Amino acid sequence: GKKVLIVYAHQEPKSLNGSLKRVAVEELSKQGCSVTVSDLYAMQFEPRATRNDIVGCLQNTEEFDYGVETWQAYKRGGLSSDLIEEQKKVQEADLLIFQFPLYWFSMPAIMKGWMDRVLVQGFAHEYPNCYDSGFLQNKLALFSFTTGGSKEMYAKEGIGGDIRYLLWPLQHGIMHFCGVKVLAPHICFAPEYVSEEKRKEMLIAWTQRLKTLWKEEPINCSPEWYFK
Amino acid sequence: GKKVLIVYAHQEPKSLNGSLKRVAVEELSKQGCSVTVSDLYAMQFEPRATRNDIVGCLQNTEEFDYGVETWQAYKRGGLSSDLIEEQKKVQEADLLIFQFPLYWFSMPAIMKGWMDRVLVQGFAHEYPNCYDSGFLQNKLALFSFTTGGSKEMYAKEGIGGDIRYLLWPLQHGIMHFCGVKVLAPHICFAPEYVSEEKRKEMLIAWTQRLKTLWKEEPINCSPEWYFK
Repeated sequence: GKKVLIVYAHQEPKSLNGSLKRVAVEELSKQGCSVTVSDLYAMQFEPRATRNDIVGCLQNTEEFDYGVETWQAYKRGGLSSDLIEEQKKVQEADLLIFQFPLYWFSMPAIMKGWMDRVLVQGFAHEYPNCYDSGFLQNKLALFSFTTGGSKEMYAKEGIGGDIRYLLWPLQHGIMHFCGVKVLAPHICFAPEYVSEEKRKEMLIAWTQRLKTLWKEEPINCSPEWYFK
Repeated sequence: GKKVLIVYAHQEPKSLNGSLKRVAVEELSKQGCSVTVSDLYAMQFEPRATRNDIVGCLQNTEEFDYGVETWQAYKRGGLSSDLIEEQKKVQEADLLIFQFPLYWFSMPAIMKGWMDRVLVQGFAHEYPNCYDSGFLQNKLALFSFTTGGSKEMYAKEGIGGDIRYLLWPLQHGIMHFCGVKVLAPHICFAPEYVSEEKRKEMLIAWTQRLKTLWKEEPINCSPEWYFK
């Protein structure tokens, strides 16, 4: 069976995000996948990139460079245990699902912190091993999120612009950079403003998509997909 | 004199980001501006959006909705003291400068958390008061940041795509959404890979720009600026 890591960022298990996470665990498990969830708020996951991420001495005690120090720490096995644990989950996964409510055209800070701290140089990439030759090749990623704004607001001519514009930093800048192939995003628009009935349909649609997910082709993660 | 808030996110005072912050404080003070700095790592600023941001009882004790609860808490003066303090600084400022190293095509998580937690509904926006009618009108914002990648990598045909692509969520999705007008970004490309001499020139160029900053016209914050 395939291995799936769901990185999940919502404070409330009863939220639509909580339900989307739950039905994904159920459906993927039913398929025989092995599913792991990183429930970031429940873990009180640390989003801040600090000296605490390096165990033991720093390479440069005069001037702290987070990128260089975590790179060196990774190579000698000296990253903090929470990072090592998340990296192990990533390493084992065939598919990463990021489940979150859109905050300010992006991920909530707690999930951005997961990206900042887990995907360190040496582990996920190391120049020139980036983009198609990043270290996390042969993995897939899928951003699944809810929005406050409606589908119309996130249309090309809408006030928020095409929703794809805001996916560039996440899908291309992070996942593609690490060599991960990206599946089409799964977006539930404005669930707060629709009926309970409609929200149930959203859960069913997600479950249905997951049934044939492994047959999907990744998107062509180049500017054309985002800004055409 | 004008009032300026610098929201600053770097762990190391001796870094180029630290120096860019320092010279901005010096130059703007010399001009007679009143400058406040929110040094996020030094403040150990909390990036996680949780129930702790609301003092006292929740409106809905059954199902926690961060957006709704902070909105209600704002209206009754029930946000946590760190948020009230940041909001006061924003309220008083004519110009917000965000100074940071680019992490994964965006702000470091600690600064994203500042956006997520400080710019609550009721304070910065409240439908339909968003974009040009957001509550933070008559303020300016400027994103000043350093990159790992070179200018060539962030050219339109470069592997990272036009640097403007990644500014869309920050400048349009956050600042413009709140009614803030956006000045052109200030970008120092790949300071780690240039000479000490070159880095000094970067500091001088920033100081020079600040000398005539108040005469600058905001950018036209619409898709054309970003994706033309």
